[in-house]
Amino acid sequence: METAVPVTVPGQSPGSAAYEKTGRTVPTRSAERASYDRELVHAILDEGYLCHLGFVRDGAPVVLPTLYGRVGEVLYLHGSTGSRPLRMTGQADPGLAVCVTVTHVDGLVLARSAFHHSVNYRSVVVHGIARQVTDPEEKCRALDALVDHVVPGRAADSRPADRKELAATAVIRLDLTEVSAKTRTGGANDDPEDLGLPHWAGVLPLRKGYDTPVANADLAADIAVPSYLKGA
Amino acid sequence: METAVPVTVPGQSPGSAAYEKTGRTVPTRSAERASYDRELVHAILDEGYLCHLGFVRDGAPVVLPTLYGRVGEVLYLHGSTGSRPLRMTGQADPGLAVCVTVTHVDGLVLARSAFHHSVNYRSVVVHGIARQVTDPEEKCRALDALVDHVVPGRAADSRPADRKELAATAVIRLDLTEVSAKTRTGGANDDPEDLGLPHWAGVLPLRKGYDTPVANADLAADIAVPSYLKGA
Repeated sequence: METAVPVTVPGQSPGSAAYEKTGRTVPTRSAERASYDRELVHAILDEGYLCHLGFVRDGAPVVLPTLYGRVGEVLYLHGSTGSRPLRMTGQADPGLAVCVTVTHVDGLVLARSAFHHSVNYRSVVVHGIARQVTDPEEKCRALDALVDHVVPGRAADSRPADRKELAATAVIRLDLTEVSAKTRTGGANDDPEDLGLPHWAGVLPLRKGYDTPVANADLAADIAVPSYLKGA
Repeated sequence: METAVPVTVPGQSPGSAAYEKTGRTVPTRSAERASYDRELVHAILDEGYLCHLGFVRDGAPVVLPTLYGRVGEVLYLHGSTGSRPLRMTGQADPGLAVCVTVTHVDGLVLARSAFHHSVNYRSVVVHGIARQVTDPEEKCRALDALVDHVVPGRAADSRPADRKELAATAVIRLDLTEVSAKTRTGGANDDPEDLGLPHWAGVLPLRKGYDTPVANADLAADIAVPSYLKGA
């Protein structure tokens, strides 16, 4: 099944401002929307909640939404030790070829022509080999990153995982080496001959942010909404 | 590359209320969150803007965000005839094994324990073989569905694709036969012994909806925002 794909690991210096391009990170279409800028990639990753994890099982693709966190140039994903993708990332085998994609939809683009309808979006696609984290310290750092990714500052304000929970949780790491971002911004790009058509053209922005926090039914009455949620 | 996977096509009657389970639509974990209800699946699909399309290239998984539309029990995806996945779905070969996943994040779940942090979400995963649409009438219906999926009613208020645009656009279809939904709702599920901990627990709901439409800079001043956007 999962072939261990020989990945071209680019010889980039950690301090370089951009990821090196590889055959599979250069799009065949809309190449002008692609970017390899580290800061942009990090910002898109850090703004997301779920990624879509792709892997191959019995020759067929599987795409599952899952939580993640980032520490520097490493993505961490976690799940039950019993889950299928995580069972497939043990240290004994060569790891699991994965593709992790994070996408934000920012607005709906309405053009005069059906053909030029689109969405404004920002996405990051990461290719690589995922491996289980076995070092206990790295595993704890990764779990903190996963919780802090949901709400920054939250890991310090919750009970850390105990030994039993740590044993039940598998963490996999994916190095950010073969990475690209793709973004679309701006209004509708109609053909010049369509500009006089009587149809409205523009962008319908999607609302972002949070609604009022909802306390658990079993929460003690004297526990207030924490300050890190008030600004959320 | 893509092995043509023998798909178990369930012998379900079109009128049945649920999709039949198959080996790959029954999760190994959190099976209580899985559903095969057609109405729920349709609602989750119809609320999304982008799906994540997974396929296998050179033995490795690829996951790309892309637009889609639904007509009954068929998903339509489109793209340039030059794009990689669409070139791989020609009629001459056995089609392309794909996995299409649509996910909504509804809220962030903060538990007293790091371990029980989660997100409330609704997702649909579709497995199957994607094939190019060659029938011109079906292709036009599919493109209307793609535009109406972005904003319902919009296909009728835009210039339809002309012959050249139709030729440049490839549409693929994926039958909704091997389908499952997965949802998480509600508050944090802490262990009983953690309920007395001093950490806030509850849900931070994500804001949904739209902001004010932004007209294109080149839009004629006498074209008002259409009524189907005012309620958006």
